[in-house]
Amino acid sequence: MTNASHFKRLALIGFGLIGGSIARAARAQGLVSEIVTTARSEKTRARVAELGIVDRVVETNVEAVADADLVILCIPVGACGPVAQDIAGHLKPGAIISDVGSVKGAVVKDMAPHLPKTVHFVPAHPVAGTEHSGPDSGFPELFIDRWCILTPPEGTDADAVERLRGFWAAMGAKVEVMTPEHHDLVLAITSHLPHLIAYTIVGTADELAQVTSSEVIKFSAGGFRDFTRIAASDPIMWRDVFLANKDAVLEMLGTFNEDLSKLTRAIRRGDGEALFDHFTRTRAIRRGIVSIGQDSAAPDFGRPHPQLKKPD
Amino acid sequence: MTNASHFKRLALIGFGLIGGSIARAARAQGLVSEIVTTARSEKTRARVAELGIVDRVVETNVEAVADADLVILCIPVGACGPVAQDIAGHLKPGAIISDVGSVKGAVVKDMAPHLPKTVHFVPAHPVAGTEHSGPDSGFPELFIDRWCILTPPEGTDADAVERLRGFWAAMGAKVEVMTPEHHDLVLAITSHLPHLIAYTIVGTADELAQVTSSEVIKFSAGGFRDFTRIAASDPIMWRDVFLANKDAVLEMLGTFNEDLSKLTRAIRRGDGEALFDHFTRTRAIRRGIVSIGQDSAAPDFGRPHPQLKKPD
Repeated sequence: MTNASHFKRLALIGFGLIGGSIARAARAQGLVSEIVTTARSEKTRARVAELGIVDRVVETNVEAVADADLVILCIPVGACGPVAQDIAGHLKPGAIISDVGSVKGAVVKDMAPHLPKTVHFVPAHPVAGTEHSGPDSGFPELFIDRWCILTPPEGTDADAVERLRGFWAAMGAKVEVMTPEHHDLVLAITSHLPHLIAYTIVGTADELAQVTSSEVIKFSAGGFRDFTRIAASDPIMWRDVFLANKDAVLEMLGTFNEDLSKLTRAIRRGDGEALFDHFTRTRAIRRGIVSIGQDSAAPDFGRPHPQLKKPD
Repeated sequence: MTNASHFKRLALIGFGLIGGSIARAARAQGLVSEIVTTARSEKTRARVAELGIVDRVVETNVEAVADADLVILCIPVGACGPVAQDIAGHLKPGAIISDVGSVKGAVVKDMAPHLPKTVHFVPAHPVAGTEHSGPDSGFPELFIDRWCILTPPEGTDADAVERLRGFWAAMGAKVEVMTPEHHDLVLAITSHLPHLIAYTIVGTADELAQVTSSEVIKFSAGGFRDFTRIAASDPIMWRDVFLANKDAVLEMLGTFNEDLSKLTRAIRRGDGEALFDHFTRTRAIRRGIVSIGQDSAAPDFGRPHPQLKKPD
């Protein structure tokens, strides 16, 4: 980190998994002098105050951004527009305004028109998370070795982009810059479509007539349980993602459906060669992901296995 | 374990992830006096001999089963019929013959006609595995707290079923008995369909024009990487599963496609309420799986996170 990436006052609007992890990581790394936060629900604000990991918890967005040098919206993407409108008149000149949304085109479209020319708008998306949510779910290591994608609109101050890059890098992230449009296509396939598919299959399993839910749960270790982790992600966040990145998701879904039809046809026709060829090809991608450190090489994601007890 | 579940000689035909894990667990728990194994490829046989975890490695199936009290076929389901035919005339009277295949209807249909009335045929399926394969991939804890489903044909000797139940229980598994037909439906949804979907989406991601493979790999932590683990499973094993359990897989796939169409329509229409309701419902299944110990409660399957380094 360069000193340029130190901020006097960080305002976090929203304190779920991502907001809470930023607070913990920024404090652990000494990246900010003061953290002020707010959250929509009184319950969350009370819990954040209790956790004692920020300097001040305030009731409104306007109070939170007062005199802040870095403002990060850590809220569902559908809420970004209204919050931008809310805080626009209260931002400190020269402040950097950012977010953590999983969709960038819609966030830029919703936020940019409200923000004054005196601030620097640098949208961001840390590609990291777990299936847990809420103020207790964050942890300082969440962003280590994960990518954070910045999508500054054309003409954004280069120094502001560099300062935000330094901030994320100091929390352990690797940083890449791209356009909001390309971001939304990349994430549609690497994140949004996988979530949609997982939500679908878990719903399917829950409604079957021939197999009970308790059987699905019992025998889930054959593959299904992996999908349930993703399908346990925050419902509001994901509702907003699909509404905000509709076009890219529908496009990827179209390709996915064509590919699923091809494999279905191979099964129906008993075409073992086509199945074998496809299943061999997909192994290579896993190796690529493990080799660049984006997943664990340990079998089963390194899931724990208890020890055997000697029989009586 | 009761003494009745101790076997003098165990023959393992095939020594991949499952065969290798049985050998390691049976030896660790003292369940057998002697393990004889064989594998189709010379390379595998040589490696098993080198590993030193069985008593004898032999070249043929016939040699392997000679005088064995328990014979377990640990091979792709498509190979079970021919191997049953191969060994049928060489089985010890009173021996238990079993397998570990992920499809049971087809295995029973392919194996049963060849086996003499003097042996006990008790098909089995341990619902456990990792994405790794080959003789080095097994480990003795693989079956702990996982279910092993036995599907004995009507009229099978009850003592033989109990002995095999005891053998699996002593390796840490929970054992359930059901019909082959019901097994195949349950596994179609809890294992086969999830694999098919994972293989499909990983293939889709690999072929896109708009997003490069290296981008897919880099930004995979948003959900996609979970699918790549499943899609890295053994291609021959999975080819055979889909060919052997075609009807049940196609049936589940039909329901999945209907559900995917419903969610797609909700996205297209911007129906946030339908999405939110669905995404809320699917969280409950995850809680059920974690609460009965079929997955880790730790976020992200307990994936490791490196420590933060203090900035310079």
